[in-house]
Amino acid sequence: MRVYLDNNATMPLYPAARSAMQTAMDVFGNPSSIHCEGRQATALIEQARLQIANAIDCALEEVIFTSGATEGINLLANWQTPVNVDEMAHEALWVHHRPGDGGIFAMGLANSETGIITQIPKKCEWGWHTESGKVTHLMLDVTQVIGRLPFSFCKSKADIAILSAHKLGGPKGVGALIIRRGIDCPILIHGGGQELGRRSGTQNVIGIAGFGAAIEAAMKDLENGVWSRVENLRDFLETELETQANDTIFVGRDVPRLPNTTCFISNGWKGETQVIQMDIAGFAVSAGSACSSGKVNVSRVLAAMGYSNAEASCAIRVSMGPETKKHDVLRFCEAWLKKKRSRDG
Amino acid sequence: MRVYLDNNATMPLYPAARSAMQTAMDVFGNPSSIHCEGRQATALIEQARLQIANAIDCALEEVIFTSGATEGINLLANWQTPVNVDEMAHEALWVHHRPGDGGIFAMGLANSETGIITQIPKKCEWGWHTESGKVTHLMLDVTQVIGRLPFSFCKSKADIAILSAHKLGGPKGVGALIIRRGIDCPILIHGGGQELGRRSGTQNVIGIAGFGAAIEAAMKDLENGVWSRVENLRDFLETELETQANDTIFVGRDVPRLPNTTCFISNGWKGETQVIQMDIAGFAVSAGSACSSGKVNVSRVLAAMGYSNAEASCAIRVSMGPETKKHDVLRFCEAWLKKKRSRDG
Repeated sequence: MRVYLDNNATMPLYPAARSAMQTAMDVFGNPSSIHCEGRQATALIEQARLQIANAIDCALEEVIFTSGATEGINLLANWQTPVNVDEMAHEALWVHHRPGDGGIFAMGLANSETGIITQIPKKCEWGWHTESGKVTHLMLDVTQVIGRLPFSFCKSKADIAILSAHKLGGPKGVGALIIRRGIDCPILIHGGGQELGRRSGTQNVIGIAGFGAAIEAAMKDLENGVWSRVENLRDFLETELETQANDTIFVGRDVPRLPNTTCFISNGWKGETQVIQMDIAGFAVSAGSACSSGKVNVSRVLAAMGYSNAEASCAIRVSMGPETKKHDVLRFCEAWLKKKRSRDG
Repeated sequence: MRVYLDNNATMPLYPAARSAMQTAMDVFGNPSSIHCEGRQATALIEQARLQIANAIDCALEEVIFTSGATEGINLLANWQTPVNVDEMAHEALWVHHRPGDGGIFAMGLANSETGIITQIPKKCEWGWHTESGKVTHLMLDVTQVIGRLPFSFCKSKADIAILSAHKLGGPKGVGALIIRRGIDCPILIHGGGQELGRRSGTQNVIGIAGFGAAIEAAMKDLENGVWSRVENLRDFLETELETQANDTIFVGRDVPRLPNTTCFISNGWKGETQVIQMDIAGFAVSAGSACSSGKVNVSRVLAAMGYSNAEASCAIRVSMGPETKKHDVLRFCEAWLKKKRSRDG
C-alpha cells in the first residue's frame, strides 16, 4: 500500500468532485447554446461559480474560469506595466518577472515548496506598499492556500487572485482567475466572448462542476478542523526526524506555514535521490516544485532564504492531505530514517 | 423525449470517453512528478497522444494538448507576421485577422454553420498559394472534420492544425494543437514547460484521457460507415422540407459538405425565433455558430456567400450525430413544417 505525501503537487479528487463530474457527463450541451441542453450546461457552470464565490468571499462576476493557474498567471505576459514578482513566488510567476517602478506585484500567499506564508502587503489610496516599492496592482497566487487556510478575496483587497482546482481536490486542467470588479486587465484568450469576455473558449463543463464540488468539500474540511489534525501529524513527523536524525534542517519551522507542509534538508543526500529512494520504498514525496515538467533545478526559494546550493539540493518536501493517517507518517519516518542510517553508515 | 440536432455545437460524450475519464479519476498524480503516481498520470497522457496521432496521421511530438480549439487559435495573437483569415472560417479565427502580404493563412476545413468543405490550398517550395495570395504558413481548423471525414495531417502538409475534443464526442475544455515538426511558432502559455515547452500548465489528465478514447471511437464510427447513414438522413430531411415547403433555401446543397449538416433559410422567419420555437417543441438546433456566448449575430459566412442580411438572419442549422435516428428526423420535419404552416397561415 503506497503512501501519498505530495499533496502540494496535486491532491486526489474529493469524492464529491468525482460525483459532480459523473453527473456533469450527462449534461452535454454547449453552454453557449440558447436551447435547453445549452442552458443545462450553463446552470452547472453557474452553480460552480457560486460555490467558488462563496468559498473565497468574492462576487459571482469576479470568477472567471480558466484551464488552470498557469493560464491565469499568463495574464502577466500581456500586462503593459512592469511586473514585479516576489522572490518567494512559484516559478510559473517568475517567468513573467519584468521588474520596474510601479506596475503590478505578483506573489504567492503560501510557498508550495516550504509552505511558508507571505504577508499580504498593505493597501493605501494610491496602491500597494510592497517589497518592490509602490505598485498599483496586486496579483495573489492562492493555489496552495484555498481550502487549507481561511481566505477572503474581498478582505485581501487584491486586484487579481489565481486558483487551481487540482490543488484543492478538484480535477487538473481547470482553475479560476478572480478579477476584482472594475479592474481593467488584459485578455489572454480571445474568441467567442465566454466568461464575460474575459476568457473565450467553450468552458470545461465537467471540470468546472468538479472544481465547484471540490472547493465546497474543501471548505467543509477546513471548518471541521481536518487541517489541525494534519498539522499535528506534520509536527509529529518533524519531531520524530529531529529526535532520530538531529542533523536534519527544517525550513521555516519557526514562521507561519501551511498546516500540511514540511521541507527538510539532509546534507549530502540529494533531494532527487531521496525522492527516488522513497518512491521505491512506497512513498510519494517531492524535491522542489513538481509543477515543472520533469525538471529538477535548485530551488530559487531556498536560495533566497540563504541556503547554499549544496543545502538546497538536499531538500525534500512532504505535503500531507486530509486522508493522511498517523500510521502513514510513522511508516514514512521509519523508511526515511532507515535509508538515511544506511547512507550514514 | 428531446431530439438533439446540434452536434456541430457539441457532441454528447462517447461511452468510451466516459469510461476512460472515470478510470482516469483514480489516477491522481501530477504528470510532472517523477514518482509512481506522477508516471501513471503521464502514461494516460501519452496513451491519448498516441490515439490522436494515430487518428490524424501525425507524429507523437506534433501533438500539443490545450484547453480547446480557441486556445490553440490564440497562437495567432502572438504571430509576428500578417494573419490572413479565410472568409469561411469560424469567428474564433476572425478575431485574429490582421491582413497583409505573406504571413500565415488560417482557415477552417469545414464550416460549422453550413458544413461546406473548403479545399486545402496547394503547397509549393516557398509556401502556399491561397486566396489571400502567397503565404509561408497554413493553419487548418479541423474541429468540425475529425471523425466525420478522413483527414491526414501528414498529407495535408499544413503547418498547424487545431482540434477540439468536444466536437468529436470528447469532453469540453480540452483540445490539441498539432504543430509540424520543425515549425517555429509562438507560445501562448508560459510556465513549467509541459508539452515540450510549447504549452505550460499541469495537463487536464481526465479530459485528455477522454479525448483520446473519443477520437478512437470516432475513427471506428467513421470506418464503420456511421456517417454515410447520417448523410442519408440529412438528405432525407432536405428532401422532406423541399417537398413540403418549396420556398426553403438550402445552403451549399450542391457543393461538398459535412455528412451531418444542413443549413436552410425560411424567409421571414428569424433563425433565432426558429431555434426557440423548436426548443419548446423538443428539438435542439441552432442559428449561426453556437460557440459565441449567447450572441446571435448575422452570419459572416452566409453574407460572404451572397445571401442578404434578411436571408442570413432567417437561417438555421440542423447537425446530426451518430445516434440520430430516422424517427427523430421525421419528428423534426413534422414539427418544423407545422410551425411554418401556422406562421404562413
